[in-house]
Amino acid sequence: MKVTVLRLGHRHARDKRISTHVGLTARAFGASELVFDVKDTHVVDSIERITKDWGGCFTVSYTPNWRKYVSDFNGERIHLTMYGLNVNDVMKKVDSKKDKLVIIGGQKVPSEIYKMVDFNIAIGNQPHSEVAALAVFLDRLQAGKELGGKFHGKKNIIPQAHGKKVVEDKINRGINNLTGK
Amino acid sequence: MKVTVLRLGHRHARDKRISTHVGLTARAFGASELVFDVKDTHVVDSIERITKDWGGCFTVSYTPNWRKYVSDFNGERIHLTMYGLNVNDVMKKVDSKKDKLVIIGGQKVPSEIYKMVDFNIAIGNQPHSEVAALAVFLDRLQAGKELGGKFHGKKNIIPQAHGKKVVEDKINRGINNLTGK
Repeated sequence: MKVTVLRLGHRHARDKRISTHVGLTARAFGASELVFDVKDTHVVDSIERITKDWGGCFTVSYTPNWRKYVSDFNGERIHLTMYGLNVNDVMKKVDSKKDKLVIIGGQKVPSEIYKMVDFNIAIGNQPHSEVAALAVFLDRLQAGKELGGKFHGKKNIIPQAHGKKVVEDKINRGINNLTGK
Repeated sequence: MKVTVLRLGHRHARDKRISTHVGLTARAFGASELVFDVKDTHVVDSIERITKDWGGCFTVSYTPNWRKYVSDFNGERIHLTMYGLNVNDVMKKVDSKKDKLVIIGGQKVPSEIYKMVDFNIAIGNQPHSEVAALAVFLDRLQAGKELGGKFHGKKNIIPQAHGKKVVEDKINRGINNLTGK
């Protein structure tokens, strides 16, 4: 199952950090690709810089026509919205084998999207955050396995009970450097 | 089990929307209280406006001394950090009956926090978002039950497969008004 995230309605003035968090969350929770319908090179650069250091195969792209992108998608289309069916009730109907397009908007999304998708799913029917919704949906979809994935980056964390430890693989120098504090 | 979220290191210029998302996520995922170590009335107002309309018992407050606040907390102290032990490995050790203080920082948190808590838990050992980390931790902690909670607000959503429906309880006029589109 390949997961693509479509972020609708990014606003340059307000959404830079939220959209960056959306991208980093998509990557860390096992999605392969993030697609925007609005170009913002600052956000793309921030996400790609993390991928360069921390690894994994994650791409960020742009579509000039999100309606066509959604229509043409070959797999299940899922819109995360607080108005949808509660994830606790509907998750069992989602096919964990088919490729997924997970669509998240900001405060306003075009109303036609509700009819274009296979599922409108609410990560609880309360207002909160598209970042939170995306994370919990991807966690439920993959039953937590995504959080054990290997990214094989230049930087890798060695989990610690009470501290920080990062292994930096300095490829150009051909050495491993263990740093911690 | 009562859950309090402590948000460390909010920055006025950069973090208004992220901290607002933290607050709304804490509320929607069953926490009772959000505590900041930095005052920002704009963020507090945004969160309280949502609580006023959508219900629930959720408070936002400020502590001038987060070290004392953490030390004095009566319950389990959990710091969410990508450097910690992976949630998939450590969650079984967390006591689902004791009150919880869930601590989230921004990019930089004081290093002493790692020693002050009972658990440093990583929602995956990759960089992503404190909003995502908080949501997934609270979802795992409460086994998803928090997303079925009732908030008894002025506004309540009637979950829909393909549309929006909100019941507005207009208390002052003593009527229920069903709106949808």
